[in-house]
Amino acid sequence: MFENEERTNLEDLGEFGLISHLTKNIKLGQPSTIKGVGDDAAVLDFTGKKVLISTDMLLEGIHFDLAYTPLKHLGYKAIQVNLSDIYAMNGIASQVTVSIGMSSKFPLEAIEELYEGIYIACEKYNVDLIGGDTTSSKQGLVISVTSIGYADEADVVYRNGAGEGDLICVSGDLGGAYVGLQLLEREKLVYLENPNIQPDLEGKDYIVERQLKPEARRDIVELLKSIAVKPTAMIDVSDGLASEILHICKQSDKGCNLYEEKIPLDPMTYETAREFNLDPTVCALSGGEDYELLFTVKQADYDKIKFKMDITIIGHITEPSAGCNLITTSGNSHPLKAQGWNAFKNEE
Amino acid sequence: MFENEERTNLEDLGEFGLISHLTKNIKLGQPSTIKGVGDDAAVLDFTGKKVLISTDMLLEGIHFDLAYTPLKHLGYKAIQVNLSDIYAMNGIASQVTVSIGMSSKFPLEAIEELYEGIYIACEKYNVDLIGGDTTSSKQGLVISVTSIGYADEADVVYRNGAGEGDLICVSGDLGGAYVGLQLLEREKLVYLENPNIQPDLEGKDYIVERQLKPEARRDIVELLKSIAVKPTAMIDVSDGLASEILHICKQSDKGCNLYEEKIPLDPMTYETAREFNLDPTVCALSGGEDYELLFTVKQADYDKIKFKMDITIIGHITEPSAGCNLITTSGNSHPLKAQGWNAFKNEE
Repeated sequence: MFENEERTNLEDLGEFGLISHLTKNIKLGQPSTIKGVGDDAAVLDFTGKKVLISTDMLLEGIHFDLAYTPLKHLGYKAIQVNLSDIYAMNGIASQVTVSIGMSSKFPLEAIEELYEGIYIACEKYNVDLIGGDTTSSKQGLVISVTSIGYADEADVVYRNGAGEGDLICVSGDLGGAYVGLQLLEREKLVYLENPNIQPDLEGKDYIVERQLKPEARRDIVELLKSIAVKPTAMIDVSDGLASEILHICKQSDKGCNLYEEKIPLDPMTYETAREFNLDPTVCALSGGEDYELLFTVKQADYDKIKFKMDITIIGHITEPSAGCNLITTSGNSHPLKAQGWNAFKNEE
Repeated sequence: MFENEERTNLEDLGEFGLISHLTKNIKLGQPSTIKGVGDDAAVLDFTGKKVLISTDMLLEGIHFDLAYTPLKHLGYKAIQVNLSDIYAMNGIASQVTVSIGMSSKFPLEAIEELYEGIYIACEKYNVDLIGGDTTSSKQGLVISVTSIGYADEADVVYRNGAGEGDLICVSGDLGGAYVGLQLLEREKLVYLENPNIQPDLEGKDYIVERQLKPEARRDIVELLKSIAVKPTAMIDVSDGLASEILHICKQSDKGCNLYEEKIPLDPMTYETAREFNLDPTVCALSGGEDYELLFTVKQADYDKIKFKMDITIIGHITEPSAGCNLITTSGNSHPLKAQGWNAFKNEE
């Protein structure tokens, strides 16, 4: 039943537009709500510590394809994707809830494999699975995870704290998960055309793993703490570097210059992107699913950061009127655009 | 991909069997985890207050049918169903997260109606919507809600505290939501056979509303506090009275006697059940979705409870060897069986 006769296409709004539209009239009434919608995780005040809560939903055919996703990996990834949001607040993840909807045609052993991956991730990251829901689905596999974490008030890092002149840093390397996905999609097509041909993923372990088995960067949060660097703003790279830095700049009311030559790419990402006639920089900017941490630090912290192997300085924050720009290797400046993964443009 | 060749049917396990199976090896490692899987909500210790977290997933075709469920009601119900779990811990609900998966064919106005119901419920129950996820779905509407609440440690009520001789109490009346569902299903069939016939729900507002727009019993939690009664055990009635009292008895290692003649039934529930040739008592025992609170209190609290209009004493807790029994109006004793809603037997 649907009473309103007006029709506006969700495709025209896009995911962020829809969220913005739907949440613009939220009234927060609880004194315990410090930060609601609008960051990687909500911040609640339950005395002493801030409680961090984040949630994500993964749907078959949208977020994953069971043709090439082992269930154990899927369970592992579902947890990592969520923990990543807690770390992006500079917090410590402590618990998760997991709700699963699946066809009753799935045998128990399949769902066990899924949970095996979930438990491996929980154990590795020292988080407790503390609840959830398990139900039948008529429509394929549905996974919803809520993660809970905590941090001292002084340690919480929002998206909106970037200051002019701050250095823009990113952990690990980018674009690999997206290129890995292209590889898996190609091998799926080959297989569908001729089931006798085995998938050719030889030597591509790294990027396939970036797609199927990402690791949330708890180690980066710990590293930053150990060298006494508190980022001024932070976000995790789920939708692509461009989309994420635009979030930080918009919420901080600042601009930025990102330097193409500084964007960290694994050689395998670079080579494989070229094989697919893809621009490796575009894969990093718009590919998404890398689950690295993108953060800004004060210039005064440069000496503490500069020799950390797993952190790359890729640009700096500018005044807002300068806009958000990519400075290409050839020296040109292009406005950054969020062309990341859009849940409402992804449907066939 | 699915590597394990063994196959066990989920149908054979049932929902509780599956959860029990999947969670039996959980190791809790966080000092902040006081209670994980196994109650209405998880209890976490974040200094001072206990934090309560609960989550539920609602799937189209399993939990709701859009043929007769207005989206606004659906949004409202999705929140109520979750808050009910926080109240069942004797807690105060304070926040929710809401994740929605829906076809991009839905117009914006449809999803706005859904959120309108969500916001109305949040405002009425004074909870903040603090996060969530919105994504495309290839498979119909998916709603996942996590609710967060809190309570003083001394106030938290688990399922496992029922003592021998305790009185079994239930709020409101039972079976209405199930009978309301029968009515809606019948009118749907009539409509499908002849779209010119308008639904005949006249005079049935109460039971239709019990199904489409349940109310979580925050008022009962407040009432009990105001008369200084702390239940010894509590659960909300989502799967039917029989299933819920069996949970309390199993977790408390006790038996019970429930008295058929005491089970509160609204006259409309009774009459409409009869029209459908259904036993009204069975509707109360196995129908589910009433979202009333079922709780046990010490006999010493009898005087405080006995004249409360909205609370009915329906039996008492016994020693475990006596089993869990329904004493019928004719004086016979029958073992109670959980024949409530089973998510894995509900699929066509």
